[in-house]
Amino acid sequence: MLLYDSGLSGNCYKVRLLLAQLGLPYERREVDVFDRSDRARILGGLNPAQRVPTLVFDDGRALAESGAILNYFAEGTPLLPADRFERAQVLQWMFFEQYSHEPYIAVVRFWAHAGIEPEPHEREAKHRGGIAALEAMNAHLERRAYLVGERYSIADIALYAYTHVAAEGGFDLGPYEALREWLERIRRQAGHVPITA
Amino acid sequence: MLLYDSGLSGNCYKVRLLLAQLGLPYERREVDVFDRSDRARILGGLNPAQRVPTLVFDDGRALAESGAILNYFAEGTPLLPADRFERAQVLQWMFFEQYSHEPYIAVVRFWAHAGIEPEPHEREAKHRGGIAALEAMNAHLERRAYLVGERYSIADIALYAYTHVAAEGGFDLGPYEALREWLERIRRQAGHVPITA
Repeated sequence: MLLYDSGLSGNCYKVRLLLAQLGLPYERREVDVFDRSDRARILGGLNPAQRVPTLVFDDGRALAESGAILNYFAEGTPLLPADRFERAQVLQWMFFEQYSHEPYIAVVRFWAHAGIEPEPHEREAKHRGGIAALEAMNAHLERRAYLVGERYSIADIALYAYTHVAAEGGFDLGPYEALREWLERIRRQAGHVPITA
Repeated sequence: MLLYDSGLSGNCYKVRLLLAQLGLPYERREVDVFDRSDRARILGGLNPAQRVPTLVFDDGRALAESGAILNYFAEGTPLLPADRFERAQVLQWMFFEQYSHEPYIAVVRFWAHAGIEPEPHEREAKHRGGIAALEAMNAHLERRAYLVGERYSIADIALYAYTHVAAEGGFDLGPYEALREWLERIRRQAGHVPITA
């Protein structure tokens, strides 16, 4: 299968990390995340949002959105709980990430990589939202080793992706001890690969 | 069970619509979406994001994020496909909604209801994002009756919620014929309730 990918994108890294840990082979095709003028041609027929990651199976079917791809491949593996409520909790954290974490922490990091200088009030709003997300995660992890069910799952993969590179956007993880210990716990999982792999 | 709810919120409406169609009884507790000063006290121990909807089961367990709640209750019903790939497609549309649709279409509608006047460039950016989402949905629905698997599912519920009130934020659905026909198709589903119910 073929992954339309970006080495910079944490959303793509989630997919690469899961596929590595499941031992599933795939090809990668790098898509430019700075110049998007070619997106309709490359991804138009595959993904209504024309974003990466987009995964194309060998039979031509396409699947997009990191959260959907992660759930698809994790089903039936130890990385997605069998319990119905725990599976819903995994989704809760994955939707939290896309709505309350990524739009702040990933966007500020993207600005840094793209050399974009936002208005001060825009940066301040993004910073405030990112801090709220980090504080919510840290408080949750003060009483738990993993986000859901006391086991490593795709919820951890989804939240690890942009949290572990939050400093690239200027977020200081120093105050969040439980969060930093959790990051280290995720890094030690069998088959872990870094975002640069 | 108890739903921390908002009559205005499309995210809460998704949950109310599904529970109505599944015939599941619950209590509602209205949470202020304009004055958020009381959020930590009301939702702090229940939902890391302190948002509505948050659902509390009779045994005290809490579940948040509309997408997670919808998947939990739809599992094993005709509203969530049994096929693994189709279930992933449902999630793809639900993540699309939360990342590429709601932050534009719902936010502009909220501004209108709250009497917030954004900077012109902020409004323009939100409008552009909303149009892109509506165009993506319309193109998809030109060849299909429902978003996934040619059957009504929680993907349709998730996208219906804010799309059908997009005009309240100034979005004109006139150009999107397939989208308007789909809205009418969703309205005709057995057990449908309006957002005002």
